[in-house]
Amino acid sequence: MKVGFAGLGAMGSAMAKNILQAGHTVMVWNRSPQAADDLVALGATRAADPTELAYVDVLISMLADDHATWSVIVESGLLNQMAPHAVHVNMATISVALAQQLDALHQARHVGYIAAPVLGRTEVAAAGQLNILAAGDAATLAKVQPLLDIMGQKTWYFGDTPAQANVVKIAANFTLASAIETMAEGAALVRNHGVGAQDFLSMLSGTLFNCPAYKNYGGMIAEERFSPAGFKLTLGLKDVSLALEASQQSRTPLPFAGVLRDNFIDAIAQGDGDLDWAGVATVSARRAGLK
Amino acid sequence: MKVGFAGLGAMGSAMAKNILQAGHTVMVWNRSPQAADDLVALGATRAADPTELAYVDVLISMLADDHATWSVIVESGLLNQMAPHAVHVNMATISVALAQQLDALHQARHVGYIAAPVLGRTEVAAAGQLNILAAGDAATLAKVQPLLDIMGQKTWYFGDTPAQANVVKIAANFTLASAIETMAEGAALVRNHGVGAQDFLSMLSGTLFNCPAYKNYGGMIAEERFSPAGFKLTLGLKDVSLALEASQQSRTPLPFAGVLRDNFIDAIAQGDGDLDWAGVATVSARRAGLK
Amino acid sequence: MKVGFAGLGAMGSAMAKNILQAGHTVMVWNRSPQAADDLVALGATRAADPTELAYVDVLISMLADDHATWSVIVESGLLNQMAPHAVHVNMATISVALAQQLDALHQARHVGYIAAPVLGRTEVAAAGQLNILAAGDAATLAKVQPLLDIMGQKTWYFGDTPAQANVVKIAANFTLASAIETMAEGAALVRNHGVGAQDFLSMLSGTLFNCPAYKNYGGMIAEERFSPAGFKLTLGLKDVSLALEASQQSRTPLPFAGVLRDNFIDAIAQGDGDLDWAGVATVSARRAGLK
Amino acid sequence: MKVGFAGLGAMGSAMAKNILQAGHTVMVWNRSPQAADDLVALGATRAADPTELAYVDVLISMLADDHATWSVIVESGLLNQMAPHAVHVNMATISVALAQQLDALHQARHVGYIAAPVLGRTEVAAAGQLNILAAGDAATLAKVQPLLDIMGQKTWYFGDTPAQANVVKIAANFTLASAIETMAEGAALVRNHGVGAQDFLSMLSGTLFNCPAYKNYGGMIAEERFSPAGFKLTLGLKDVSLALEASQQSRTPLPFAGVLRDNFIDAIAQGDGDLDWAGVATVSARRAGLK
Repeated sequence: MKVGFAGLGAMGSAMAKNILQAGHTVMVWNRSPQAADDLVALGATRAADPTELAYVDVLISMLADDHATWSVIVESGLLNQMAPHAVHVNMATISVALAQQLDALHQARHVGYIAAPVLGRTEVAAAGQLNILAAGDAATLAKVQPLLDIMGQKTWYFGDTPAQANVVKIAANFTLASAIETMAEGAALVRNHGVGAQDFLSMLSGTLFNCPAYKNYGGMIAEERFSPAGFKLTLGLKDVSLALEASQQSRTPLPFAGVLRDNFIDAIAQGDGDLDWAGVATVSARRAGLK
Repeated sequence: MKVGFAGLGAMGSAMAKNILQAGHTVMVWNRSPQAADDLVALGATRAADPTELAYVDVLISMLADDHATWSVIVESGLLNQMAPHAVHVNMATISVALAQQLDALHQARHVGYIAAPVLGRTEVAAAGQLNILAAGDAATLAKVQPLLDIMGQKTWYFGDTPAQANVVKIAANFTLASAIETMAEGAALVRNHGVGAQDFLSMLSGTLFNCPAYKNYGGMIAEERFSPAGFKLTLGLKDVSLALEASQQSRTPLPFAGVLRDNFIDAIAQGDGDLDWAGVATVSARRAGLK
Repeated sequence: MKVGFAGLGAMGSAMAKNILQAGHTVMVWNRSPQAADDLVALGATRAADPTELAYVDVLISMLADDHATWSVIVESGLLNQMAPHAVHVNMATISVALAQQLDALHQARHVGYIAAPVLGRTEVAAAGQLNILAAGDAATLAKVQPLLDIMGQKTWYFGDTPAQANVVKIAANFTLASAIETMAEGAALVRNHGVGAQDFLSMLSGTLFNCPAYKNYGGMIAEERFSPAGFKLTLGLKDVSLALEASQQSRTPLPFAGVLRDNFIDAIAQGDGDLDWAGVATVSARRAGLK
Repeated sequence: MKVGFAGLGAMGSAMAKNILQAGHTVMVWNRSPQAADDLVALGATRAADPTELAYVDVLISMLADDHATWSVIVESGLLNQMAPHAVHVNMATISVALAQQLDALHQARHVGYIAAPVLGRTEVAAAGQLNILAAGDAATLAKVQPLLDIMGQKTWYFGDTPAQANVVKIAANFTLASAIETMAEGAALVRNHGVGAQDFLSMLSGTLFNCPAYKNYGGMIAEERFSPAGFKLTLGLKDVSLALEASQQSRTPLPFAGVLRDNFIDAIAQGDGDLDWAGVATVSARRAGLK
């Protein structure tokens, strides 16, 4: 299978490498070409321009955001040059609105379109252990399932409309952000009554909340270890905004998301935008007069 | 060791039974005397009045709320008649303010006072597998630790001021309520985009959130199974109010708790106060125009 | 008419003086006796103890809060010694719950009870131009109306249950606090886009919002003139709490009040509790990275 | 002065008519041409296409939203054909981001650009009594001031960057929406304690809040008179969204706007999007179990 891969950030590079090492022919493209050097050294072909990816069987994209996705897939002319019955698997976290628009454009071109955003950070991607949230035509998905199985430990299927996977990804990130905010508020409360954040949070993640979300972020909040960022506050605000947009489009009030938006903005306004998004805990602490 | 036990609701009965069956001499009291019948049949002595519990080595109380606690421990005259150096272990979820007041009253009487609220529902209590959140003088706690070990799988220690355990319990319940609200909002969002709540929530509790809080409440929300209640919405509002009181007392803003308060009130105003507190999910669904 | 007056703070003193100067016989009491000196010099009699006020025709009280009211009216024994058919006019801002409790106690004693909290600061009280928010039995109110007409420009009647006036007063203060918060948020927004707060707020109070609430508080926010306080932030938090209590009791969600609570707490946690409550604007400014 | 006028909705028609009747030569354009019939009957010239407006001295636009503005001013080619040193006065409520973009495009073309959104509904526009919120180069504004004086009673100047007027307009509408929400919450609270909304709201607008915003909207809320709409809920949500966008762009938390967003969405999800925006009061009433 000839595979094209657009977007070689930390996540994309790790995913593309797994596909390459599984024996597929891979052509790669990235805005900054040097990001492709390692993959080329391992046998990938470098595309000089996104449109060179038009002649693959499966195009996988993992681009930074709505703007980059639109620019590389649509504005470059790539989609317009793709062969009918090729399949595009878009694994980025994009807005529901863009997902709907891309779905329509691919249908018009008779190019298959699967949305498959992922859960998991770089090291999980490197291990081929991502959780993949997929939606789109089932028969089309079946064609690319072998590639997804290389990148992930499990594919979760959410229906035949691609945007359904995107709203699930957005809701999952909202759930993470809410867990962070909850721990931040709870930690500020117990600290103001003389209990250490660590004591409180490790009890939680040792009992009712013994799962990765609470263990990882609870640890970061307890130790105030927000740098280097695994996922920046500014990106956290972007993802909360995606939830708010999806909620407004579908007429779904989302009061926790409103609180999250304001607290991320507060953190960024204080100059903390480059901290890990768990650093939104600094907002609860500051407002509580701590430190 | 002569143990007194006041408050034989579903939780208290299960806890008292374990202590009795471990071989201790137990005197029990409950406002409705028939709640003691089973324990008396197993060998416990029935106190006709709370003050009869004054002559034990360790008094354990598991009363419904602040009002019941104050009435049984203080107003009845029980505390005033307790022997110096006896120990009172208060395992109920009470306010930080009452915990501080009781601490002072016990100190004045030279009666030991340990706060030890618990995590876990009735079946966990019956199995002696509670997680016990304890605070108070360490030497005093050591005296009663054998009793705690009968009732719980682990005792978490939060400091030598009893109220510290109460604030941790209140913050833990706040964390649970926030997790419920987050799942409710997220489920409404994905449903309004055509994804089933079950698909979304079982993915969450199968990945980043594979822990009891998300598995149990996620299942209830997905199946809209809010009755019979494990913990009623009206009690949920009571516990959110305890968090708000503690936050106001200690000058700790708690914006998620404000949202929770309003949503619990909304549910109760619609007549749903007797549902399980996961039933606050009906609020998010209704506001989103679902069903 | 023999009038008793309990509570001679800035407001109470001004109100009692007007009654005295209108020719009534007035007996006054205040916790700190020297607050009565000026009134005694003008002809009032000083009560050494609240219970000396029991033999008046009309008792007016203007005490600081729930605690002071309960202490002076009930705990002192004053109410128990009042003659049947005397009337107590309680003009303080107290909780709905206490208003209901006092109503019942007065009924049991056959003492008339009118709730009559006021709108207006000290200088308005001195001018006898208060707006009086009254509730209670209409015939009883008619008896004291001549006294209310001395203190106020207008009496607004809200029904025959005294607590109805208290909930209106609480809701009016909530409306003021919301107007302050709205101006604070709007001012932060325009400032972050290069527009002066003064330019924005004076346009508002010169057009759609040309009324005292926006003129007075808009001016304070624009000039950041929060000291000396006309009404302290800590009292603002107290009044927002009264709104939250009334809303919880009556099952009325009140999301703006939740935001107000957190922002007042934030301000107090930063050490600004003694500023005027318009100083909650410092919270919006700080969160927006201003100054 | 040759004046072009694009956008003849209820507001635009009234404004254009005043300019025409003041003796200016006016060319008009509207997407639905029949909206221009009355003005043509009074002497205006009809443009068949937006680009015919390129040859005026002053172009005034009053288009529905960002999309319509972009389409008519930029996409049509109108701006590109305008003579250097002509002036465009944009009186619509548009986003800060679009205002900034238009400012840059006009500068590049050496066409003057004044932002001048207005406060006031149709009858105020008809009377030439609008309040005009203006920003842009002061010398350019001076050129068009005679036209503004025909349409409005007063021009408020907010600085030399056009977007400054737009953020003030957005903040003013946020202030109105917050006043509506505040009255809605307060009214629900007093109603749940047996006080009529009318009694409460007319007291407010007779005392501290005796200004148009509270009188008009208070009356509508008290009488539950939300139809026909003066300004629809769906437009209210659009304007709250403009505030949220401006706040996110400038890093200004805006917690009241988050509450407003959710409550407008709630109302629209229940099918009430065509009510007047004061109809957001139905949300507070419903949540409080009223009616």
